[in-house]
Amino acid sequence: MDAEDKGEKYFSCTDTERAAFEAGIKLGTIFHQFIGAPISRSNVDDMEKTIEKCARIQPFVEDVEVKINRDLLHDKKDIYDYYTLYANMLEVHIELKYRDVLIIAEMREIEDLSYPLMYIKEIRKR
Amino acid sequence: MDAEDKGEKYFSCTDTERAAFEAGIKLGTIFHQFIGAPISRSNVDDMEKTIEKCARIQPFVEDVEVKINRDLLHDKKDIYDYYTLYANMLEVHIELKYRDVLIIAEMREIEDLSYPLMYIKEIRKR
Amino acid sequence: MDAEDKGEKYFSCTDTERAAFEAGIKLGTIFHQFIGAPISRSNVDDMEKTIEKCARIQPFVEDVEVKINRDLLHDKKDIYDYYTLYANMLEVHIELKYRDVLIIAEMREIEDLSYPLMYIKEIRKR
Amino acid sequence: MDAEDKGEKYFSCTDTERAAFEAGIKLGTIFHQFIGAPISRSNVDDMEKTIEKCARIQPFVEDVEVKINRDLLHDKKDIYDYYTLYANMLEVHIELKYRDVLIIAEMREIEDLSYPLMYIKEIRKR
Repeated sequence: MDAEDKGEKYFSCTDTERAAFEAGIKLGTIFHQFIGAPISRSNVDDMEKTIEKCARIQPFVEDVEVKINRDLLHDKKDIYDYYTLYANMLEVHIELKYRDVLIIAEMREIEDLSYPLMYIKEIRKR
Repeated sequence: MDAEDKGEKYFSCTDTERAAFEAGIKLGTIFHQFIGAPISRSNVDDMEKTIEKCARIQPFVEDVEVKINRDLLHDKKDIYDYYTLYANMLEVHIELKYRDVLIIAEMREIEDLSYPLMYIKEIRKR
Repeated sequence: MDAEDKGEKYFSCTDTERAAFEAGIKLGTIFHQFIGAPISRSNVDDMEKTIEKCARIQPFVEDVEVKINRDLLHDKKDIYDYYTLYANMLEVHIELKYRDVLIIAEMREIEDLSYPLMYIKEIRKR
Repeated sequence: MDAEDKGEKYFSCTDTERAAFEAGIKLGTIFHQFIGAPISRSNVDDMEKTIEKCARIQPFVEDVEVKINRDLLHDKKDIYDYYTLYANMLEVHIELKYRDVLIIAEMREIEDLSYPLMYIKEIRKR
């Protein structure tokens, strides 16, 4: 992504801090855009890919992997045979690159916290 | 969709009124779940299909077609080269069947109203 | 709400069917707009009122009552002391009037279905 | 907010980078949770306060101010007299504190970019 970054002048921080900020935006976006969507065994593959594609078009995203836990999508036997996408079903791994900084961030339900934690897993400066 | 409808006993209305109610739910769902999603020329095909698949897993949906207006996704030349999915980009055609009632409902921006209208286009009783 | 309904000409249905359709839209809207919002004991009153106010500005809504189940918001003891608004916390009672039709619709988690059912409780024609 | 941060061990970054990450999450949350909500002159004050209260219950948020541009909510004269909350109406100023780091971040539509930019305005280390 070599296009000009016209937004740069609005930032007062280091490249690494910006990378961290951008990673946070992307995880907040995924959570709050897609939680609540109808989900079942029949559209779960598709939904994973769509969330990934939405993330990839945002600035600085290099890679993203989304996994929706199928164990929580057990078969139901009637017309209400689908679920709502909730945070505890969702695992996200995202890699962003801002200039010379690569940042890896993740989101997943942490059992000890009963909370879908978003965290910075690794930062690499080249 | 011949599975048992365990929710039926909660309804006090005719089959046609229920079909109309269910159609309204589905259009409200599509609008408020997906408005705000990141969208560009590169993921627009995918997003249309995903919205359709989400609608199809909901009760009584027979068919659905989603079109996102590509004219509003003109090319931008920098890293902010994507848009937010807004209601005026979105056209939805949905067909639901509840028992002997087929209902066709749509959503699209009506210029005269400056409003993304959801309306019942046709009801057929077999 | 006596203002002109410029959208009327797009509808092919009875007044009662339209009332049912509009009720469905409003419940779909509430669910998919607000599920996922951060919620705790400290903002739960406010969130109920806000959802009600959002519903009231939509066409034909006469009255709406939103209850978020506080039992599911038990106290947590750390910084992650809030929750995400999920469908099973949410009860909605809504009354719409379209011409001479009053429709009462509700949404609540039905334990037998493990499903947040939206249903038409009553229709009154005056 | 002196409660224990049980999530800390999952992070591999400095306090400032974490503060930046948390600020990004909060802005992404506000955008993607509330864009699409029904908005009019009659509920705009309430919606601003509600978004602020949702942000305040999230970890590390010290202060937040939300402004929705009323110029874009001109009076309409019929039953469709409300709007959908879009990003170009929304201005957010948020202050987070993580340990000794205070970070100020904002979101607003930047005309030059035709884009609702989220940016780090200032970082203070005490």
